[in-house]
Amino acid sequence: MGVRTPKQFCPILERPLISYTLQALERVRWIKDIVVAVTDENVEAMRSTLQKYGHTRVSLAAAGATRHRSIFNGLKALAEDQEGSKLSKPEVVIIHDAVRPFVEEDILLRVVTAAKEHGAAGAIRPLVSTVISPSADGCLDHSLERARYRASEMPQAFLFDVIYGAYQQCSDYDLEFGTECLQLALKYGHTKAKLVEGSPDLWKVTYKHDLYAAESIIKEKISQEICIITDPKEDQEPIGHLLEEVLKSELINVNITSRALDHTDRDIQPTISDRCCSFVCVNVVASEFQETRKLLSVLEESNLSVLYPVVVISVHFLDFALGPPSQQMESLMWIREFAKEVKKRNILLCGLLINYSQDEQKRQESLRQGATIIATLIKERNSGFIGQLLIA
Amino acid sequence: MGVRTPKQFCPILERPLISYTLQALERVRWIKDIVVAVTDENVEAMRSTLQKYGHTRVSLAAAGATRHRSIFNGLKALAEDQEGSKLSKPEVVIIHDAVRPFVEEDILLRVVTAAKEHGAAGAIRPLVSTVISPSADGCLDHSLERARYRASEMPQAFLFDVIYGAYQQCSDYDLEFGTECLQLALKYGHTKAKLVEGSPDLWKVTYKHDLYAAESIIKEKISQEICIITDPKEDQEPIGHLLEEVLKSELINVNITSRALDHTDRDIQPTISDRCCSFVCVNVVASEFQETRKLLSVLEESNLSVLYPVVVISVHFLDFALGPPSQQMESLMWIREFAKEVKKRNILLCGLLINYSQDEQKRQESLRQGATIIATLIKERNSGFIGQLLIA
Repeated sequence: MGVRTPKQFCPILERPLISYTLQALERVRWIKDIVVAVTDENVEAMRSTLQKYGHTRVSLAAAGATRHRSIFNGLKALAEDQEGSKLSKPEVVIIHDAVRPFVEEDILLRVVTAAKEHGAAGAIRPLVSTVISPSADGCLDHSLERARYRASEMPQAFLFDVIYGAYQQCSDYDLEFGTECLQLALKYGHTKAKLVEGSPDLWKVTYKHDLYAAESIIKEKISQEICIITDPKEDQEPIGHLLEEVLKSELINVNITSRALDHTDRDIQPTISDRCCSFVCVNVVASEFQETRKLLSVLEESNLSVLYPVVVISVHFLDFALGPPSQQMESLMWIREFAKEVKKRNILLCGLLINYSQDEQKRQESLRQGATIIATLIKERNSGFIGQLLIA
Repeated sequence: MGVRTPKQFCPILERPLISYTLQALERVRWIKDIVVAVTDENVEAMRSTLQKYGHTRVSLAAAGATRHRSIFNGLKALAEDQEGSKLSKPEVVIIHDAVRPFVEEDILLRVVTAAKEHGAAGAIRPLVSTVISPSADGCLDHSLERARYRASEMPQAFLFDVIYGAYQQCSDYDLEFGTECLQLALKYGHTKAKLVEGSPDLWKVTYKHDLYAAESIIKEKISQEICIITDPKEDQEPIGHLLEEVLKSELINVNITSRALDHTDRDIQPTISDRCCSFVCVNVVASEFQETRKLLSVLEESNLSVLYPVVVISVHFLDFALGPPSQQMESLMWIREFAKEVKKRNILLCGLLINYSQDEQKRQESLRQGATIIATLIKERNSGFIGQLLIA
């Protein structure tokens, strides 16, 4: 964390990068405590991040001037059973980077298991570029044979005593200029780390283009699930079902479910705990918005939109042949005001008017266009379109 | 190009990645010929890419089974002055990857200049991860001191005779398993390559997340310039100018210019040759769209939208207090049909209705919201919203 530009605080969908990494670690139940090494100047930002996004299993330690000094401080916080501290010395410790938010439980388990057996373990990846050694005059001295080397990535795991012992013995030079914990375990702990092949997701957010990539990946992840909310009384006219069918055929990789909201709002609960962040609300009567209002009040009561912006698309069906859509639009303009209101809770509300034509072909075309608009709104998750009434 | 999944043909904004790389090289006037090594199975895709996007300076060579064999074939194509071939042996040759689309003239010039002096030169970057050497049992053997090594990137440049001579001498083993051209120049040409520090933009599109990053970077690049088209007769009511002011204050890093289209369309030409891909068209009379029609016909005649999707936002001002916007919407619904039509030419057309209220504060708020919508449409460049009439 001791870098000048704190990449780990760069916002992705308005939430700091480090919060995604902490969330990924907190999702793993067998990780007991999480210690973040943070510089004095970032302590306040860090504390407010922890509070705002509910990272309750995280403790802070003081960052050092270098990576190794920060890690050492983090280990000390775990080693010293201080009065009032909720931390206690673990058998195994994982070391991870704040800027690798896409770490999965699988690789964490694999490095921890290997660390238990070997004393130390770390994730590796094939080299993307050839590594070369420059001579003093800035020319090529020699290149390394790419196949014989690997990139050392994170996470790494250690028997606590192995890595803590290594840090206690290591020199100032190591603490200043070293970068590799596995090397310290080898040099001072005489422990040969097991190398574990990781996935490309372990890559480190280093440059601006990495931030763009991270944002796209997060947007994609939270757009994999769409929940369609329908009116439970919608028996004779199953238009919600029609839309569901079209969405399923247009968005083949998305998990689409549908639910009716009953009056006690009980049915929505499983969806919310599944962390679905995209809702399509089907209102049968074009000028009413019962279902949307009901859903919004449920969402506002939940904490769902704390971590991710939640998209809600209020869908209204209307036969455009019975009168141009503009005539009914007026009554739907409530969406504009309402959208401003719920935006404060990180809910992005949009309206969508679908031509429910008697002409089968026209209706299908309109449904397909509606599906495209829904897919775009959910994928982009951009607040620029909130309160708009789109027409399919 | 000999990879199984042809990453270089992955579409970014519907255009294959390799076309961006070729465009980057063709932009550099002193690059005379470009040779692409392509496998038999990809020849057709490549030819149609060259034709569709107008890459006239590109010749094809047969790819080999490995990277080095492909490069060797490319060099042969340049060395052999064949009957009817427009290629001739150059003094200096640049070697580049199809999947590094963001190469700039500056680094090309620096490697070429260094190659002229040293015989060989290549771009390098600091290592992002520590490099380690595994032992046969999959454990850490040793780690390299990160500061003493560099990642070898592209572009590289060589005196043609140096690198061609090296390839002619090198062994089958080198051609099969080698990855580093600089190493061949050293080993067989006794030429110590000069290493030139490059920017992070040189990174290689390798994984899915790199494609996401590349798309975001390209979108950002083509959104840096917005041209506002105004009615030349708009003297007494300078609403186009008002919008320009707000856009300039809201989008501080974007270059915003404004132009009137005269009847001969002469004024738009400089904009088009500047490769501006984002247009805001101000129509003074809300229900008319003279300026938009005029611009669209100019754009359809130009080749501007061949390389990038062009966004056109047709802006209409209306005092919502004089009648709800829906009443006038009807006459603006031509946008839907028109948008479908111009989409075929890669032009993304959208409508935007701004509340031109007599109330200064309301007007400013509406202008600001309009600016947000314009910025979003231009940034996202998504075809999902074409034909919509958005309201600010």
